[in-house]
Parts: sequence; structure tokens; C-alpha cells
Amino acid sequence: MAQKAQVLYDFTAEPGNNELSVKEGETVTITNQSIGGGWVEAQNSRGEVGLVPEDYIELNKQFSVFPSAAAPTSSLGNAAAPDLSFFDAYAPAQNQVDAGGLSPQPETPDTPVSPYLSSPDEATNGNDPWSTWNADPSGGSTNNWASNPEGTQTGKSAPDPWAPVSHGHPQAYQGPGAEDDEWDDEWDDMKSTGGYAESEAGESGALQRGGSHATSMKISLNKFPGFSKSGPELYLLCKQLVKGKDRLPIYVGEVGPVWSYPETQLDCVVADPKKGSKMYGLKSYIEYQVTPSTTNRPVNHRYKHFDWLYERLLEKFGSAIPIPSLPDKQVTGRFEEEFIKMRMERLQGWMTRMCRHPVVSSSEVFQLFVTYKDEKDWKMGKRKAEKDETVGVMIFSTMEPEAPDLDLIEVEQKCEQFSRFTKSMDDGVKEILTVGHEHWKRCTGPLPKEYQRIGKAFQNLSSVFTSSGYQGESALTDAMTAAGKTYEEIAQLVAEQPKKDLHHLMETNNEYKGLLGCFPDTIGVHKAAIDKVKEGDKLVAASKITQQDKVTMAKRASTMSYALQAEMNHFHSNRIYDYNRVMQLYLEEQVKFYETIAAKLRQAHSQFTTM
Amino acid sequence: MAQKAQVLYDFTAEPGNNELSVKEGETVTITNQSIGGGWVEAQNSRGEVGLVPEDYIELNKQFSVFPSAAAPTSSLGNAAAPDLSFFDAYAPAQNQVDAGGLSPQPETPDTPVSPYLSSPDEATNGNDPWSTWNADPSGGSTNNWASNPEGTQTGKSAPDPWAPVSHGHPQAYQGPGAEDDEWDDEWDDMKSTGGYAESEAGESGALQRGGSHATSMKISLNKFPGFSKSGPELYLLCKQLVKGKDRLPIYVGEVGPVWSYPETQLDCVVADPKKGSKMYGLKSYIEYQVTPSTTNRPVNHRYKHFDWLYERLLEKFGSAIPIPSLPDKQVTGRFEEEFIKMRMERLQGWMTRMCRHPVVSSSEVFQLFVTYKDEKDWKMGKRKAEKDETVGVMIFSTMEPEAPDLDLIEVEQKCEQFSRFTKSMDDGVKEILTVGHEHWKRCTGPLPKEYQRIGKAFQNLSSVFTSSGYQGESALTDAMTAAGKTYEEIAQLVAEQPKKDLHHLMETNNEYKGLLGCFPDTIGVHKAAIDKVKEGDKLVAASKITQQDKVTMAKRASTMSYALQAEMNHFHSNRIYDYNRVMQLYLEEQVKFYETIAAKLRQAHSQFTTM
Repeated sequence: MAQKAQVLYDFTAEPGNNELSVKEGETVTITNQSIGGGWVEAQNSRGEVGLVPEDYIELNKQFSVFPSAAAPTSSLGNAAAPDLSFFDAYAPAQNQVDAGGLSPQPETPDTPVSPYLSSPDEATNGNDPWSTWNADPSGGSTNNWASNPEGTQTGKSAPDPWAPVSHGHPQAYQGPGAEDDEWDDEWDDMKSTGGYAESEAGESGALQRGGSHATSMKISLNKFPGFSKSGPELYLLCKQLVKGKDRLPIYVGEVGPVWSYPETQLDCVVADPKKGSKMYGLKSYIEYQVTPSTTNRPVNHRYKHFDWLYERLLEKFGSAIPIPSLPDKQVTGRFEEEFIKMRMERLQGWMTRMCRHPVVSSSEVFQLFVTYKDEKDWKMGKRKAEKDETVGVMIFSTMEPEAPDLDLIEVEQKCEQFSRFTKSMDDGVKEILTVGHEHWKRCTGPLPKEYQRIGKAFQNLSSVFTSSGYQGESALTDAMTAAGKTYEEIAQLVAEQPKKDLHHLMETNNEYKGLLGCFPDTIGVHKAAIDKVKEGDKLVAASKITQQDKVTMAKRASTMSYALQAEMNHFHSNRIYDYNRVMQLYLEEQVKFYETIAAKLRQAHSQFTTM
Repeated sequence: MAQKAQVLYDFTAEPGNNELSVKEGETVTITNQSIGGGWVEAQNSRGEVGLVPEDYIELNKQFSVFPSAAAPTSSLGNAAAPDLSFFDAYAPAQNQVDAGGLSPQPETPDTPVSPYLSSPDEATNGNDPWSTWNADPSGGSTNNWASNPEGTQTGKSAPDPWAPVSHGHPQAYQGPGAEDDEWDDEWDDMKSTGGYAESEAGESGALQRGGSHATSMKISLNKFPGFSKSGPELYLLCKQLVKGKDRLPIYVGEVGPVWSYPETQLDCVVADPKKGSKMYGLKSYIEYQVTPSTTNRPVNHRYKHFDWLYERLLEKFGSAIPIPSLPDKQVTGRFEEEFIKMRMERLQGWMTRMCRHPVVSSSEVFQLFVTYKDEKDWKMGKRKAEKDETVGVMIFSTMEPEAPDLDLIEVEQKCEQFSRFTKSMDDGVKEILTVGHEHWKRCTGPLPKEYQRIGKAFQNLSSVFTSSGYQGESALTDAMTAAGKTYEEIAQLVAEQPKKDLHHLMETNNEYKGLLGCFPDTIGVHKAAIDKVKEGDKLVAASKITQQDKVTMAKRASTMSYALQAEMNHFHSNRIYDYNRVMQLYLEEQVKFYETIAAKLRQAHSQFTTM
């Protein structure tokens, strides 16, 4: 019996999975309720059919509109393709070059899509992680660091066109119930154990300051009891520190406090995406092969497993280490291959960054992800990881700086220095992304079109000349035709160049934007701890803590500062490496580009006869 | 007594001459009536003061508003500068590069002015010389050549965005009375002898077909009795042909009919513009030095003398040889030096083209212009040239083809072939100018701005990095700053490149556009002659001409055809030379441009340390 159902929550279809996007309040018709795995097949008012998570809809059992024979289950193949146009960089460029015709046309304001464009929603919702720093409830212009006598970047009040890549990951919004796993029936565990009501989230400590706090930290951390319930005081006042193999030493190296780095750096390759399907082919998914350099033995993971790992890492290390979001789930291409390629490239970037981090890469959960032996091993490891209690601020309890304690002033100065730097760098990265995005559009849109028109104009004039009937015309016309073709080739080169150089520059800066977007939260934890230590005397006077507690808090704030410094030094060293590499690559490709054009033009030039 | 006066005709001030632009119907106040030379000083309603030709205004003698003491004659220095912004190519580019700031801005639709842009008036008045070919008074889509069985270009009916550079020369519009000459008091002679009323012009033969006929031919030829009164029949039926030294032989060479070429080609250099003034400094003018390769002795000429020469050549040779217009009088730069430089460059181009033409360069009037010995010589030569009666179609009476007569079918075919070719080439040239104009705008506007922003973005990020406090930062930051500066240099290179290459491509095509614009009239004369010959039998039957006249007409049409073929062959040979040269120059500069950028980027690349 086909039944009507009410959509309870927005759901966005994942491309290529036969899913159907639905909006809260929409009425759909259930066309197949026996899909299983938490999914039903539904048809919307436009006749589109696809899978929807059953938790997202509410059945109207009191009436049924269609006799079950009329249910258009056979029309599944007609399910409208999800909108794949967002985030497609390459196809428009080629289309435009090919579309460039003979007749001169006024330049239309083409907007070829670049892969660095945030979605319109993101661009307008003001989802700026830096905005959460404004702790002043009156909404004034002060920010957390405004009291810093050395001056901050608060003067930069120009409207911010930078819409950050969403730090919320759609998987979290859709809830674990929307996902299933054919070889992991524990997947839904989280659904029953996790999750805090909105009212609780509001009281969950330092990380929840600010009304517009919509980053992944809030979304994800709310779900984890070890984290969301704890302000930094949980660590500052805890009785017992972690010992043994979980210990995270912090050394003092040439550049200052540093993590303990392994002798050989872990590396891994994400490759060989394979399409799989389940539920009798109704749902398909992509499985990536992840091969760590240590074992050189590939393991398979779906995007949802990466997402699981991300959540574990965020939960465990997020207070001390910026854990960048996974590539946006909505990242998509016009064609499925492009979508897969782009996602794989970004998953590779994310994994490489995680591998490079000594604390993250040596963690049990990360090692499990890259080296699990079999399904049983994975399941057991997963269960253990999800039960890990050294999460949130408690990660600091594992840290052991091998250096004298820092006084609070020094701790505060370091914290402020890092916050200034990360904010400035965020501005700088943002500027490059904006400019690069513009440049991408020009290089794939109007510029090659213009070169093509120049080429056509030369060729057209050449063919007019050919019709002159005058003797000895061909030397000129051959050369002019060749020159015209050269400009058409240049058009092609120009249109394809961004993929070769600008792409990498943009990807690196995009990664850094994501990374920098984690710092406000990470630094916020430190700031909250500093505030707590500053309250020490008052708390002692009010008999809320003992004198010993106060001393302990100061010592632990020092430990936190060492951790922050170690992390910043890690960040700096990676940053220098990354920018050195990407700038070299960019310039190298740019040199090749200009040299190729020069060589082509030189060849075209040689075809003209000297008189 | 300051008097009010009514402006009778539009007058456009020439830059740097203290003139005042006025509009028909405007009321001005005469501030100095005793300037002399046909000029008065006037003030407009905006308080601007300058010289206006006295013939252009009508004094309101009945009242005077200001007592003469109040006439602001002393404010002459405040006369608003005439609008010099039209036709300025270079200044906007530099302004834009300099104006490019730190903050990313949305791309504004800049319209840097290129020197190849027609004025808005020209762009909208449909002043297309090809449009006059449509002889069908019903305004249908037929054109003169539509009956051609081989097919014509009439299928190309797309709206024509090409607004030709005005072929009317403003001097003609303003009338000779607007000009005076301190060393040539015969200058105004033309004013009394020339000039036909509109009603007469309408009957003046083949050249006056078509209502929108607004090319220089109409304007200029109307003024000359030898030309405007004559259809081709004047020559076709004339009794006596010119003999002696004015004879213009036409030989048959390898490529077909050719003019008689001199052993050494005349060449001349236009250089050394000098500013002079007259009327107590109230009016200033530029004198150019013209040095012919034959005597190597410089003579001086003002623009108006070039214009006089142009009118003589047009009058004498215009029926047989396309005489391109002088550079537009309105061509101007933002600064006077630019205006002078641009005009000189174009006068040079015009003179070079005239020198290269064997018929034009060997003519008495042209030789006078480049080799006159003294003022007396010049005056006598001028007087003689103005009395020349071998003008208009009568030039054909001097031509002696050394080849058998052509039959009418062949004559007609040749004529049609040339008209097709010149029309097609006009389209091709037009396309290059349109595309080049777009490219000029991009290269001097948004493109360098973008490179500058890329450069700034790199430098800004570099300076953020410098503030990190991390050791070993400087290798990267120095290299990134250098890379940023390199992109700023590239911005500059991009903005300046069009002057080095596109400029010449545009100038050459612009010259050809002017030249091609003469062909419809030139070919029109031939077409009219062919029509007349076709009427032969009818005219004989009606006893309007004799049988012998009919034979003579056919023979003379053959002579005209030889002349046209000789001219086309001259045109083709020059065209091949010119396009070969300009394409080589363009590509050579383009190669240098891309190689320079590649070298700069290679240098920038080398500053990054390899890791």
C-alpha cells in the first residue's frame, strides 16, 4: 500500500546513491517500504523517486492514496539526478572554449564554477569561526583579544566576503541513522548512546560560547559525553593524570616546545576508488583503498569510515590539536568520476596531514584505521575507540612537558600571539583564495574565449586573402592561418592551465583555511583555562577550591601552554614545508606555461617570410 | 560691449588651440570681438572662454547684457580644457594598475579607452560606407551586386557592430573659414570659389546615390566643381584625352595590369613637431617637419596643409585610387604630447602610404608638398594645383593601358570580384579591430589588476609569515615576497604590452579600414560607367549618342577597368607586405613578452629552497 508521509527534517541526497533530497514539511509518497537498512523509497510531488532515511519521515497511516498496484516502483530509473553542478571546475571551462564562435560577441558575465566556491548558503549564513570569539553578549565590537596591549587585528572590520567551507559535516546533520553498513552492524550504536538535547548543549562549557557557534566543534562535540560536558576545569582540577603508553611527552627543541616525532614519518596513499552497491543495487557507495607506508598493506574504507575517524580524532584531540574537517560531503562534480576524483584527492590531503602529525598518527584509533587486519579486528578496535575516556580536555592529562612550568603571563602571551597569528594567516589565506577564485574564473572563461576569437579573426582574414586571386598570396595566408591556429591553441592552454597550477595553490590554501578554522576553538579552550586560573584566588577565598588546587591549576595551564606551543611549532614547520612546495610547484608550472606559449608563437613567427 | 550671440552650428574645439566647443542653438557671450582671422572670443554659460569661428555664431545686436568691463576676458586662462579623454589608450591602464589596492574588490566593468574606439556618435549613426551600395530606393535588401550570379556577400546580414572611423574630416564640416594661415593669405580662396548647395549635390551623379551617403567622398567632392558635377559620362564621352607628361601608362606585368613604378620608391619622414602660435599667442598650432628621401631636405607643414593635400589628391585621383582619410582631427590624447605623438604617427602612416603609390607620389601636387623650395614656390604651386582640371573621372583620360581592350563582361566581372574582395576584407579587418579592442581593454584593465592582486596576496601572506616568531622563516618569506613582486611586475608588463604589439596590429588594420572605406565610391564610379556602356544601344537608338560614341565609351570603360586592376594589384602587393610585416612584428613582440614573463617567474622560482 503506497502511503503518504510527512518529511520531518531536510535531507540532501548524496550523488550517485539513488537518494532523494527532501525538505522538512514536504509530503512524499512511500513507494517501497521494504528496502531495509533504515531506508524507504519515496516519491515527491514532482514525481522524482529515491531513497530517504526512514527516520526522516513520519508515515500518515490513517489514509492511503494509491492502491499498491499503482505505486510507481518501476519508475525508479527515472529518479532525477541530484544537482551535480556545484563544485565543478573543469567542464564549464571546456564548454566555453568550444562554444566560442566566429562572431564577436559582447563579453557576457560568465561565472564558470570553481571548486573553491562555497555554496550560496554558506556564503550568506555568516558562518565565520572567528565570529565566535566575540564573547561580549552586547554584540559590541570588542573581541576576546581586544584587551591585548600589543594591538590586535580588530581594526580590520571590512565586510568579510570569505565564506568558509562548512565545518559542519553533513553526515552529522543527517544523523547516524541515515547511514548503514553492510559489514558493520554496530554502526547504529552511537544512535542509542550519543546525543544531547539542545538544552544541555547550552551549558556545556567554554566551547559553547557565542550564539553563532556553528562549527564542527559544536556539532560534533555535543554528541560526545567526554567532551561536551567538560570545561577546561575538568582537566585543571582532575585528581589523576594518565600514565603509561598513552603518555604524550613534550620536548624542548631548537624552535621551542615540540611533540615527540617518530623516526620515520607515517605516510599513506588513498587510491583505487571502487564502486560497490548493496540492498540489491539500490544503494551504491565508493570504497577507497588506503595503504599505509608502514605495512604497505591496503585496507578499504568508505567515506563514512573516514568520517567516523574524523569524529574520534576531533573528540580525542580537538582541544589541543586542530583536526581539520573532512572534504565537504557536498563537494561534487558534474560527472561522477570528477566527484570521486576530487573527493579522493582531498581525502588524500586530509590523510597526509593526519599522518604527518606525530600525536594523531601514533594514536591507537588512527593506527586501527590504517592497519586493521580484518573485520573482527576493526569491530573490536571501533568499540574500544568509542569507549575511550581520554577525550576532550582530558587529552592534556596525558601530556608531560619536560621543561619547567611557565608562569601565567607567559602562558597568556603565547596564547595571544598564536591567536593573532592564526587570525592574520586566515586573512591572508582568504585573500589568496578570493583572488585565486577570480583568476580561475578569468582563465577558464573570458580569457581563452578572447584568444580563440583572436585566432579566428586571423584565420578569417587569411581566408579572405586566399580569395584575392592575386599571385603569391599563399606564403602569407599559410602563415596567418598558422598564427590563428596558434592562438586557438593558446586559448586551450590558458583554459587548462589552472588545473595544473592554480588548482594546487587553491587546494593547499583551502586546506589551511580548514585548519585555521579549528584554531578559534582550540585557542578558546586555552583562553578558558587561563581565565579559570586567574579566578584562582577568588575561588580559594570562596572555599570552592583549595590552595593546592590553585597551584595544580597553574601547573596544568602551563602544560596546556606547552601543548599549544608544540602544536604551533608543528603547524609552522608544516606550513613552511607546504607553502614552499606549493609555491615552487605553482611557479614551475607557470614557467612551463609561458615558455610553451612563447615557443608556439616563435614557431608561428618563423612561418612568415622575411622581406 | 560684451554681446550675446546665438550659435548657428556645432563647433568642436581642437585641443591646445584655446578654442571653445559650442553647440547649435547655444547662447554665448562675446568677450572679444577683435581677435581677427575669422575668430571671436566667447564665453559659454558654464563660464568657459575660448575662440569660436565668427561664421558659426550670429550676434544679437539688439541687446547687451554685460557692460564691457564685466566681460571676463582675463579669465581666458581658466577656459576649461576640451575633453581630451576620448582616444586615450595609455593613461587609464597605468591609473588602474596604480589604483589596484590591497583589498580584494569585485571586478568593476572598467572600460579603459582604447585608441581604436570610434566616438559614440559614430557608433550609432550607421555611417557605414558599404551601406551606400544599396541603390534600391525602396530600402529592400538588394544591393548593387546582388544580381551577380556568382553570389555575393549579401547573405551576411548580421547587425554590424563596426562603427568606422569617420571618413568625413571635421575640417570640411567646420568650413575653410574656420581656419586661417599666417603665411598664406590665399587660404580662404576656396571659400569663395567652392561649395555647392544641397539641392545641386543631389543631382551630381553616381557618387551621390543613397541617402546615408556620408563619407568623405560626398563631403569633399561636393566642394569641387570638376568632380561633383561629373558622372562617368564626362570621361566616357569626352572628346580629347590628355597627352604629354601627365600621361599615366598601365603595363601588363606578371600579376596583370600594373601602374608604372618608379625605380626608387619615394619615402618621407614626418618628425619633429613644433608648437607655433599666432594672433598674439591666442591660437597655437603644431608644425611637422616632412623630409622626403629624394631631396633629404625638410619642409614644414601644419595639419591643415596635409588636409589641403588630401583634398587635392581626393579631387584628382579619388575616382581611380582610394585616397584614405587623414587621421581623424578628433584623435586626441589625455595629454597634448600624446595627442601630438599619435597624430604624427598617423600622419607618417598616411604619408608613407601616399609615397608608396606610384601615381600619387609622382603627381605634381604631391611633389610640391614634399619638395617646395620656399613660400613663393608653395603659393604658386598651390594656386596651380587648385586650378587643375584633370580631376574627378577625367583622371581616366590620362591613362593609357598598353594592352588590348577588354570586353564589357570581363570589365564587369573584374569590378564585381574586387567589390566582393574589398567587402570581405572589410569584414575581416573589422573583426580584428573589434577583437583587438576587447583585448586591449582586458590587457590594460582587469588583467593587470588581477596579477597585481595575486602579487599583493603573496606578499601579504609572506608578511603574515614573517610575524610568526618561528625560526627559519625568512627563506620562505623572502622567496614569497619576491614571487609577489614578480606578479606585480607581470601586471605592469601585461598593461604595457598592447602598446608594443597590439598597437601596431590595430594601427595597420585601422589604416586598411580607412582604405577599404574608399572602395565603395571608387568601385561605384566603375559601376556607373558600366551601366552607362550597357545603355549604349538605347542611347544610340534615341539618337542621344552616335554609334562612334558607343564604341568610344566601351573602349574607355576598358581603360577604367585596367586602371582598377592596376590599383587592385597595387593594393594586393601592399597588403601582403603590410600584413606580413605587422604579423611578424606582433608575434615577435608576443614572443618577447611571454619569454620575459617566463624568465621572471623562473627567477622567482629559483628563490625557493628545494626540500
